Amino acid sequence: MNTSAFEKRRQALKEEMKARELPAMLVSLAANRYYLSGFELHDAQCNESSGWVVVTPGDDYLFTDPRYVDAARQVWPDENVCVYAGRKHEEVCSFLKGKGVTSMGFEPKALHLFDYDKLKEYVDLAPTENIVESLRIIKDADEIYRMEEAIRLNHELFEYIEGELVPGRTEAEIAWLVEKFYREHGAQELAFSTIVGVGPNAALPHAIPGQTRLRENELVLIDCGCRYMDYNSDQTRTFWVGETPSDRFKKTMDQVRAAQQAAIDIIRPGLSCREAYQAAYAVFEKDGVEAMFTHGLGHGVGLETHEPPSLSRVGQGELEPGMVVTVEPGLYDPEWGGIRWEYEVLVTEDGCRVL
Amino acid sequence: MNTSAFEKRRQALKEEMKARELPAMLVSLAANRYYLSGFELHDAQCNESSGWVVVTPGDDYLFTDPRYVDAARQVWPDENVCVYAGRKHEEVCSFLKGKGVTSMGFEPKALHLFDYDKLKEYVDLAPTENIVESLRIIKDADEIYRMEEAIRLNHELFEYIEGELVPGRTEAEIAWLVEKFYREHGAQELAFSTIVGVGPNAALPHAIPGQTRLRENELVLIDCGCRYMDYNSDQTRTFWVGETPSDRFKKTMDQVRAAQQAAIDIIRPGLSCREAYQAAYAVFEKDGVEAMFTHGLGHGVGLETHEPPSLSRVGQGELEPGMVVTVEPGLYDPEWGGIRWEYEVLVTEDGCRVL
Repeated sequence: MNTSAFEKRRQALKEEMKARELPAMLVSLAANRYYLSGFELHDAQCNESSGWVVVTPGDDYLFTDPRYVDAARQVWPDENVCVYAGRKHEEVCSFLKGKGVTSMGFEPKALHLFDYDKLKEYVDLAPTENIVESLRIIKDADEIYRMEEAIRLNHELFEYIEGELVPGRTEAEIAWLVEKFYREHGAQELAFSTIVGVGPNAALPHAIPGQTRLRENELVLIDCGCRYMDYNSDQTRTFWVGETPSDRFKKTMDQVRAAQQAAIDIIRPGLSCREAYQAAYAVFEKDGVEAMFTHGLGHGVGLETHEPPSLSRVGQGELEPGMVVTVEPGLYDPEWGGIRWEYEVLVTEDGCRVL
Repeated sequence: MNTSAFEKRRQALKEEMKARELPAMLVSLAANRYYLSGFELHDAQCNESSGWVVVTPGDDYLFTDPRYVDAARQVWPDENVCVYAGRKHEEVCSFLKGKGVTSMGFEPKALHLFDYDKLKEYVDLAPTENIVESLRIIKDADEIYRMEEAIRLNHELFEYIEGELVPGRTEAEIAWLVEKFYREHGAQELAFSTIVGVGPNAALPHAIPGQTRLRENELVLIDCGCRYMDYNSDQTRTFWVGETPSDRFKKTMDQVRAAQQAAIDIIRPGLSCREAYQAAYAVFEKDGVEAMFTHGLGHGVGLETHEPPSLSRVGQGELEPGMVVTVEPGLYDPEWGGIRWEYEVLVTEDGCRVL
């Protein structure tokens, strides 16, 4: 991505800051930091930040530790990079003071209390709510291109993996085939730990691929995604291993696909996130199986696998053009198994398009 | 690991809590949570917790969302599992109140301000400092066994990868060979993103493997580790590609290995973490190359790749038997390249043992 794309995003943030009368904004969430700067998509560990960005109406500043100084200098003017060492918070605030920054908005969902308390010794901090997320929620043309490429690889993956669903193979073996395919076709990493669930394991929403083997005449659910050109994909399919799917499999699959289609049919700008969920729920309710639909309908995807909006019973807000959300209804019975089918859809000017 | 191992760890925590007069302890850091419960080594995302553990002098409680309820029930008595939905903080605190818990210690380095503020509406919270980390820092026999297995795989990896360092291959290709080897030999995942740096790239402490190709008569630095049986390994070696290493390579390698050996020679219980660093630094200082040693000497490893203690200029505390730390001096010249050599050592009763 060229530098101006990041500049444009920071410009949009500056507008939001102005509307909220924020003199500066400390960005600590890794995906937000990367979105605004191109600097480090990941933190070293969840409890070890790779750096912070501070956006002001004028210059913007990048803070990091010595490990990342070269990466920082590749994306940021040298005079606006601050490399901290032992006393991080003091050094960050002293640098900011030198630039005239003594008061900032911050991200309460991405700043640990330890950092907050330390920073508060030197600067004023004002909580903000999802400001950068509200920019990220609408994907621009370049982001949509990248996400289409990522989901294209997912479609190819499922075409490939269906042929590998041979009885006798373990869930863990299938998961590794998934990962290898992604990586050998250009993905940077998995978007999340691949789920492979055979039979009853498919009813576990967080099934860890184990030593359970694929069996003839049983279902297997695969939920997987990759990061490609920095953007994540997320897709689920449920397969029947064997020639003839059972009646229950066919019936449940029809119900799941009907619920998915009902949501896709009405997804368009202006629809509330709850209504999208309700559309799928209503299909299950009609058949009296809604109790087996135990999770939300979908969520935003992008630099993170899970990001706003949430299409669920308690989801907030309305859909807008440029949002990319998953539509993933499922029906689960712990004794039997489960079926989930997931697409990503792009909200367009007058409806949506399955990616 | 059997349940009693986790119980034993919680018992040790209860002793620490008693000494600090803490009526309960909220554990939110993923590695600490797993260490005490066996529940979920990872969070779904850094901004999306998979659950919390609350330890009290009596019963202990596990809090999670519906995705993980089956995983929770596998490791925890049903009556002490609380599954939250939309209003997480209210539900957690209401459950705790029902158990008589209204005041808790918490981990300021692993609780976001958002969660802190929400919880504070219902319970009293007292900051604590690295209580669980101070338990994790000493590895028990089972943990040492697992870490030895993880590092064994690393040694095998380096034996294998040396033969793959063929001129023309890119850094990214080598990184993928590393990952495949780990995974096909039983590792769960990478411990961290593999670093492969050719020539000058080896001087970048955070070199991202790219399209730079291995060249005849040039060095390549590989820093990699895997998670095996839940525990991480972390090791660096620097190789010469070609028959005859340059004089500069040989000389720099000798200096690095001498600095490493100097530290290993004195690492024993009672040595301060700073002294370990100083021992390596002094070797470089004697040769006047200390300015090229731009990072600490090492860090603890275990469930996390980076954990206490820190063997650095500002490291705190003393070494104790059962600690596992890296010893990884390096010398870097951005124009030329860099050499780092890293071992993990176990502090024993009277010295240390290279793993």
